[in-house]
Amino acid sequence: MSLILALDFGGTKLAAAIADANSQEWLGYERCLSPANANASTDLDIMRSLIHSLLQEVKPTAIGVSFGGPVDANTGTVRLSHHVPGWENIPLQELLADEYGVSVGVDNDANVAALGEYRYGAGVGYDSLFYITVSTGVGGGWILNGKPWRGANGMAGEIGHMVVDPAGPICLCGKRGCVERLASGPYMALDVREVLLKNEPQRTQRTQRGEILRGLVKGNLELITGKVVSEAAVQGDELAQDILHRSAWALGVGIGNVANLMNPQRFVLGGSVTKAGEDFWRVIRQVARETALPEINFEVVPAELGDDAPLWGAVALALDTV
Amino acid sequence: MSLILALDFGGTKLAAAIADANSQEWLGYERCLSPANANASTDLDIMRSLIHSLLQEVKPTAIGVSFGGPVDANTGTVRLSHHVPGWENIPLQELLADEYGVSVGVDNDANVAALGEYRYGAGVGYDSLFYITVSTGVGGGWILNGKPWRGANGMAGEIGHMVVDPAGPICLCGKRGCVERLASGPYMALDVREVLLKNEPQRTQRTQRGEILRGLVKGNLELITGKVVSEAAVQGDELAQDILHRSAWALGVGIGNVANLMNPQRFVLGGSVTKAGEDFWRVIRQVARETALPEINFEVVPAELGDDAPLWGAVALALDTV
Repeated sequence: MSLILALDFGGTKLAAAIADANSQEWLGYERCLSPANANASTDLDIMRSLIHSLLQEVKPTAIGVSFGGPVDANTGTVRLSHHVPGWENIPLQELLADEYGVSVGVDNDANVAALGEYRYGAGVGYDSLFYITVSTGVGGGWILNGKPWRGANGMAGEIGHMVVDPAGPICLCGKRGCVERLASGPYMALDVREVLLKNEPQRTQRTQRGEILRGLVKGNLELITGKVVSEAAVQGDELAQDILHRSAWALGVGIGNVANLMNPQRFVLGGSVTKAGEDFWRVIRQVARETALPEINFEVVPAELGDDAPLWGAVALALDTV
Repeated sequence: MSLILALDFGGTKLAAAIADANSQEWLGYERCLSPANANASTDLDIMRSLIHSLLQEVKPTAIGVSFGGPVDANTGTVRLSHHVPGWENIPLQELLADEYGVSVGVDNDANVAALGEYRYGAGVGYDSLFYITVSTGVGGGWILNGKPWRGANGMAGEIGHMVVDPAGPICLCGKRGCVERLASGPYMALDVREVLLKNEPQRTQRTQRGEILRGLVKGNLELITGKVVSEAAVQGDELAQDILHRSAWALGVGIGNVANLMNPQRFVLGGSVTKAGEDFWRVIRQVARETALPEINFEVVPAELGDDAPLWGAVALALDTV
């Protein structure tokens, strides 16, 4: 049996799983959270122990790795992590190849998740697709002609920093109105919190804007997250609905622009924010359709592999190395 | 000798040229303007006569065609022309192959020009590039992995209808603030004209905004074109400079967004508007650099083949068919 080892260095969590080349289910799966003071060395040690508990002494056929940060996929060298220190220029592919004596493929999480959805998920049968993850950040990965497109420096896919509203709020990257600034969970939470801090509860005709939001966190505004915004929106909070609507609008404009530019068959959307309900999807699809030229056809569909997309993509990446 | 015939159906002009496979210069070149009441049939007749005067009875080795409008490049079928009636679903590749008995390649002008610059111009040695033409409209063509990327429906490259300012003026496509709406020659002329029609000459500290513009067309505002706007800007007209600056800004945002999304090595810019001077280029480069993430490297360079880019691209397209 050909045993494929898939690893996911996720920034806040680490996961390892094994599959054989033809299985559509995991033969084994281990995950744990990164410790508070994680660095590259502790991440690697934890990953080694996950691998040991999965494999014991059995040698895998190949290893695929999804890494939450920029990677030089040609050499499998991690450039850095935005969450965990010590990952600067770590030759992860070489390191694992030496340690386990098998071929290894390493790429960043968005590219790997795109590959996962293409081989095993919502992208099966679609030779050109753009995978977008919308959660803590907004990132993307390309499949063109059935293969990952990583760009000249391995930096392709950064839809999160496409400007969709030059008059919008300032993003950490220094620009205004990036897709990520408007659409990601933490920024939605930030914007909602600011409105609630600034304004005393306001009375509209029907209900107070933000009242449901305040209730969900029992008045402790620091507890508001993207998920809380989604919940409040579903329950009818108009402030939450407005913020979520703006998130969907930003994604819709971004997707429409990408459709005009690259004309892929499918957009596959995953990540926690995309679980915000039918209304959220309706706005994305409508705005994307309005933004794209009428002659350009495309579909916007939910990811099928959920949080496992990077791990399944890592399986595909590993299989491509053998 | 292998004689390659290159044809350019340009909307307002028709051109034909011959080269041998290794030549960097034309062996023969014919062009003429489309008549006022042109249709597909008159375009084809004029092109036949251009070909006859170039080739006499000699048979070319292959034919490449650049067409100014959407084309299904797989079959070489023209979908339509936005300028000349009667081109709906004309199987141009089949038609020419039957008539001349040789292999034929047909694609739209932006894709063909991209191929031309890649093989013979500013893109030589750059495996991933985006060619942008900025003149009557704004269009683009992709080279990825050294080959044209046309998209799932052959519609890739439409940077002209990327929205860069959702609060901007309305474009013919129905959206606001498309790159083409802000950057193309006719729209720049339109916007300048509107300002001049609305306002009596205004006095600023140094000179009247629009004074030079009015002078260049001797008061007949209908004569203002994109070229006139460029000239007035160079001569110091502040209104013309503002409009041209906005054009460069829109292109810069578009290019920066594309750099984030696809990470190509080079952007090659051609078309009449790109001849607007150093200041125009400086703004494009600066805004593109600010819009792209700092880790993403790219260059923005002028096209080298000028108006001949589609014809040289047609040579490359023809060579690829044999």
